[in-house]
Formats: sequence, structure tokens, C-alpha cells
Amino acid sequence: MYAIGERINGMFKSVAAAIKEKNPEPIQDLAREQLKAGAQALDVNVGPAAEDALAAMEWLVKTIREVTEAPLVIDTTKPEVMRRGLEAAGSGSVINSSKGQQEQLDIFVPMAVEHEASLIALTIDENGIPRDANGRGEIALRAVAAAMEKGLPMDRLMIDAVILPVNVTQPTPGHVLEAIRNVKLLSDPPPKTVLGLSNVSQGTRQRELINRTYLVMALAVGLDAAIVDVLDTELMDEMITAELLMNRAVYADDFLKAYRASAAP
Amino acid sequence: MYAIGERINGMFKSVAAAIKEKNPEPIQDLAREQLKAGAQALDVNVGPAAEDALAAMEWLVKTIREVTEAPLVIDTTKPEVMRRGLEAAGSGSVINSSKGQQEQLDIFVPMAVEHEASLIALTIDENGIPRDANGRGEIALRAVAAAMEKGLPMDRLMIDAVILPVNVTQPTPGHVLEAIRNVKLLSDPPPKTVLGLSNVSQGTRQRELINRTYLVMALAVGLDAAIVDVLDTELMDEMITAELLMNRAVYADDFLKAYRASAAP
Repeated sequence: MYAIGERINGMFKSVAAAIKEKNPEPIQDLAREQLKAGAQALDVNVGPAAEDALAAMEWLVKTIREVTEAPLVIDTTKPEVMRRGLEAAGSGSVINSSKGQQEQLDIFVPMAVEHEASLIALTIDENGIPRDANGRGEIALRAVAAAMEKGLPMDRLMIDAVILPVNVTQPTPGHVLEAIRNVKLLSDPPPKTVLGLSNVSQGTRQRELINRTYLVMALAVGLDAAIVDVLDTELMDEMITAELLMNRAVYADDFLKAYRASAAP
Repeated sequence: MYAIGERINGMFKSVAAAIKEKNPEPIQDLAREQLKAGAQALDVNVGPAAEDALAAMEWLVKTIREVTEAPLVIDTTKPEVMRRGLEAAGSGSVINSSKGQQEQLDIFVPMAVEHEASLIALTIDENGIPRDANGRGEIALRAVAAAMEKGLPMDRLMIDAVILPVNVTQPTPGHVLEAIRNVKLLSDPPPKTVLGLSNVSQGTRQRELINRTYLVMALAVGLDAAIVDVLDTELMDEMITAELLMNRAVYADDFLKAYRASAAP
């Protein structure tokens, strides 16, 4: 699984403070720690509180780039902030994210092509989040069509079927599993699938248990990537084990250690 | 998930000793502990060392019956031992198991009908264990046909797609997931699916991690039942959480406690 570290996000107080004070150390530490823990890419989100989101994104990306060339996942809804982040991060980045309505796809798909980036497309559109797997599939198909039309290779389109907290809407985790499976039938080759995992447990009392259980379920139906807390050791242990059981990593008696050694930057 | 406790098995030394000495206490303790931990049925296996398997099975079942009326899963390859176990356990038991060759099905399917029992049919036949999901599906179909012919209701047929240790054959866990999914397409209503889980981790150094990860993966593709170590708290926590995420149990903030309270005998 392509593990995207979620921790460089202005929603966390320490990250918000570092952005405000232009203090590179906490950010660079988080970058290094997440890569060491098995992240293959790093999500970068300035958070809602950043006063000048454009400057904050540029500073954040450049600060991370001082310590790693790992792919960065530029996490913003604002096209101008996205563009600034992509310019600072370089090719091989990920746009996180476009919604599924045509106007958004018309902005972000060409941006992905221009910046040699991948694109996360959410299965949300002007009508909101679909109630079931079929609704998610319809929006995903729109994203697939946009990618084909604009020349974005299918292995750089990542469909996020939008998980919601299990305590708010209990049928959704099942719908999302079905959608992940269905997305693989939309085209040949199919787009990739990704999840912003932690949302499934928002507001529950067993966040880590719910997160890791749902991640393993999603991997079983073919999930390719997820934005996760890679510093959660139990989650990563189960992710690594699920990869092994899907025959995507070679068995060794100390397979956990072997994975981490190969992941270290 | 229908959780079948695996611990009353003569493979465990304490159980073998209790059988030999006709000492009911360790057996009855294991029955009570497993039911308290969430088992809905108890596997009963006299083990390879029992001198008189017929008498041992009868004693074991009667000893368990003194403390619980929970369904018993009579675990033997020998038809006469199976019959003795079923007679002692009463209706609602489970035959564990028939292989998939016609001669075995011709013995055990009518036995299940006669004793009002369910039947676990393994996807193994005279040619051994199939190399892939399709081979497993073909044998499962033979079991479905036998059940239809002899009048065993489909919800009392349980297909076990036979998991092997991941360190011996790494493609098998994936094949078994595919087979579990395919079995649901064999008939309408479909048969149930079951796994003897612990075999997936045999000989590995991370048995519990591999067991619980694979159980969650199998639940995500529709597994109905498993023979597991219900005394493994982490495994049961994730099983309960996966059920919640599949919308098979109602969310409550303390859903783990709620499940266990409802499971207690």
C-alpha cells in the first residue's frame, strides 16, 4: 500500500504553531519520523487557521524539501494554493483533492497534467456525498472520463470514495468497500483507489482500533493507497501484514522489520 | 460472525490430559471461558492421541453438555466418531468436516440431515487442495449440489475454502478470499462460509498478528463464521469492530463491551 503520512497538517496545534512562527524543526522532524515509520509520501496541509495560505503552503513545502525528496501530497481546496504547493514541491507530487463536479475536474485534471502530478478525486459533487456505492461509482466514472479526455494517465488518478464516521452513518463503511471494488472495473487499466482513513473513526472512543480494522478491510478489497497516521505502530503492523497476506510483499520470518528497513529513507 | 471456539482440542496438552484422566473440570472451564469471551459454538476434537476415540468423544461432549447447551462443532474425520458425537450433543450441532469428494459427501450430508446438524465441507478432494480460487469453487459447487439433492438447507452448509500457512504458500490467502466471495454466487440463497483461521499463521513468528489481520480481511469479503481462539482478546476486538463496520452490529460508544455483554451465556 502507498502510505501517505497525515501528520503535517495545521489541524494539529504543534504544526499550526510552527507555521505561524516559521519554525522549521517540528515540521522537518515530522517529515523524517513519518518516512522512517514507513510513509512513502507526506500529506501537506496548512490548516484552516493559516493567515496567508499561499505563503504558508510555500514555506511548508520548501521546509520539507530541505530534508526529503519524497513525494508530497498537497492538501488544499484552493486552486491557487494548490498551484503554489505543486510549484514548490516539483513533479511527482499529488493533488489532494478535486471534488467530482465537472467545474472542479476542469481545473484540477489539467493542473495534474501540467505539473506531472497525480490527482486524488473525491466522490463528492454538487449534490454532496452519495448515499451508496453506485452513486460513488458514477462520480468516479466522471473523473475517469475527465482524466482520459485531458491525458492524465490512469495510474495517476486516485479515487477517494469518501469514508464518513461510523458513528454518524453506519452503512457507509460497507458502501465504500463496495465502491473501492467497483472502481477497479471502470477502466482498463483502472484508476488507483485511496482513502482518508481517519475520518472513519472521528468522534468515536476507539479511534485506533476502528482505523486499523477498517484499513485492513479496505486492503482486502483492493485499496491501493491511504492517508494514515503512520506513527501508529499497530496500524502499520497490520497494514504490513495485510500486504503480506495479499502476496504484495515477500514472506520472511521478521517481515515487519524487513518492511521497515526497506521503507526507511 | 459466528465465532467457534477452537480450544477444546486434544492437540492441547491440558485437554489431552483431561480426556485421559476423565477429569471434567479443565474441559468445563474451557467451555465457560470461551462462551464468556464471545464464542457462539464450541469445537470439540479429541485429538490424535486419544486411545478410544469413540468413548473419548462421547465423554467430551457429555462433559461439556453438563455446563452449556451451546451448539457443538464435532471435529473428527471418522464417521463413527462423528455419529457418536452428534448423538451425545443433540440437534443444532455442526459436522466438522466432510471433504469434497463424492464418497465423503454421500456419508456426511445425509448424516447432517438425519441429526438436524449443519455441515462444514472442505474444498479438498481426492486430488488434494486446489491451487487457486476456481478449483475451490468447483469443489464447493459439488457440496452445494449434494446438499440440494439430499435436502440439507443451504444455510446449514458451510464451505471452508481451506487456508494454508502464509509462510508455506503465499498466494493462498488471496485465493481463499476470492473463493469466499465466489461461494456466495453458487446458489440463491448461498451456502455459508467458514474458516479454520489459525492455520494461516502456523509456523510463523507473528501468529496473533497474522490471525487477526487475516480474519478482518476475510470478514471484509463476506466470511460468515470462523473457528478461532476466542480467548485472544485483540482478535475478538477486531472481529467485533469489523462486524460494526459491516453494519452487522449497532454502533454504541462502548460497542466492545456491549457485544461481550450480549454474548455472555
